[in-house]
Amino acid sequence: MSPADVVLDQRRSDQGMGGLAPDAFEPALLTLVADWLEGRDTTDVVICGMAGARQGWQEAPYQAVPCAPVGPSVAVKTRDPRLNVHLLAGLCQNEPADVMRGEETQIAGYMAQNPTVSGVLCLPGTHSKWARITGGKVTGFTTAMTGEVFSLLSKKSVLRFNTADGWDDDAFARAVREGAQRADALLTTLFSLRAGGLLADVPAGASRARLSGLLIGAECASCLRPGDAPVIIGDEKLGALYHSAFNAMGISSALADGDGLTRAGLCAAHRVIASRTGVDSTGVDK
Amino acid sequence: MSPADVVLDQRRSDQGMGGLAPDAFEPALLTLVADWLEGRDTTDVVICGMAGARQGWQEAPYQAVPCAPVGPSVAVKTRDPRLNVHLLAGLCQNEPADVMRGEETQIAGYMAQNPTVSGVLCLPGTHSKWARITGGKVTGFTTAMTGEVFSLLSKKSVLRFNTADGWDDDAFARAVREGAQRADALLTTLFSLRAGGLLADVPAGASRARLSGLLIGAECASCLRPGDAPVIIGDEKLGALYHSAFNAMGISSALADGDGLTRAGLCAAHRVIASRTGVDSTGVDK
Repeated sequence: MSPADVVLDQRRSDQGMGGLAPDAFEPALLTLVADWLEGRDTTDVVICGMAGARQGWQEAPYQAVPCAPVGPSVAVKTRDPRLNVHLLAGLCQNEPADVMRGEETQIAGYMAQNPTVSGVLCLPGTHSKWARITGGKVTGFTTAMTGEVFSLLSKKSVLRFNTADGWDDDAFARAVREGAQRADALLTTLFSLRAGGLLADVPAGASRARLSGLLIGAECASCLRPGDAPVIIGDEKLGALYHSAFNAMGISSALADGDGLTRAGLCAAHRVIASRTGVDSTGVDK
Repeated sequence: MSPADVVLDQRRSDQGMGGLAPDAFEPALLTLVADWLEGRDTTDVVICGMAGARQGWQEAPYQAVPCAPVGPSVAVKTRDPRLNVHLLAGLCQNEPADVMRGEETQIAGYMAQNPTVSGVLCLPGTHSKWARITGGKVTGFTTAMTGEVFSLLSKKSVLRFNTADGWDDDAFARAVREGAQRADALLTTLFSLRAGGLLADVPAGASRARLSGLLIGAECASCLRPGDAPVIIGDEKLGALYHSAFNAMGISSALADGDGLTRAGLCAAHRVIASRTGVDSTGVDK
């Protein structure tokens, strides 16, 4: 990024906490961007997400809600002196117990662009996050295991025979409404996908869309409150899917680009880190 | 079995539909019980369950509810002329779509021993079945994917880090009540197991029991009706678990032995098959 928060270049890698030991993060970063460091004394690196988990590069704290989404950060000691690496804190909630790492930075990006926002942000994914925002703070949030449950059921359960591939928009919309109305019956409704395949030869595309719709409908029913008009923060495909789910339920929603908001949140965090003066005795930036 | 339905001998094998091609069922049966056939012209073999599925030994029909649980059977052509094999029909329901294979025989066994039963039978398992019985007929039934979802979440999901082993009876009872009261929030409540492990070091035993309790509580909430006093048909361990779940919810229930009822149901079906006179043009016993 330039000092004016303009993107100069970008690189992507699928290497992360799932496959890297703590001492493998720095080499992985250098493999990706070593040429960016040439000719500079130091380069600031601001990192959100699972690199700050207990099994990540180094553990970053959780900040308890209610709080602003940009909180503490930790400075990471690197072997290469040209790197000035900071890991951002995640958010936690004590009751009900909940945690996030990474999504708080997208939330920070959205709030940097929309300082007076009040309402609910929906961040769909493997573990969807729903965050309530008021007065510049995240007041509470909820995680739904929707994406992971969809993946397990469609790939590893008996439903895999009926939900391998394909798609049907109408079946999705109907299932969203059914899932929302009968969220309490999810464990039993799911099996109807198998039985429908056996008894009525329901096509796989319709079954796959119905599985997705039942889960997303149940997620929305348990996370939405009356009057909510969610802002969806996600990648293009998943964002569009949740947008159509809200449409099916007659709920207005808006879409925001997840990648752009991650960058905006990292820039907001970088401004805070740059204003700090050092590191305290526990390794947290102060 | 003797003609008076007394067990003379029993053998078990884990070979079944999951691992056998259609033409491998007869050899697998002979490997298990060939010595039983010696010195007899023919031996009747009555089979319930997934051997009658489309991917099984030979497809047996589904009988649509409402109906008595002992219905049509199909005679299987065998290479060994001493075998007289019959596959029992499963049950199906058109709306909501549902199927069972095998449990109808346990239900038949229970109804043979309790001809005037009226109420709900709960058959816990990978796919739990809840069957409504009135006037000698199964009037409807519901499948809940509780066991399979528990297995996937505790072994394959992010929750596996918190639910690997151990048990805590009190955590189970509390979770059953919570799961029943908040059945509509299952997708979000589940993630609290992960967050509780990260934030409060909840022991794995308590988390594993809580995962089981949340799922069983949600299953019961969606399947129970006011006034139900379920009869639980299952193996010793799972039967006791559901019995304690009903206790936690203040619901009286009774336990029946699944293996004994399978035998009683097979005997009831054998009496019907023995009274039949042949096979119709579609291969169904008549």
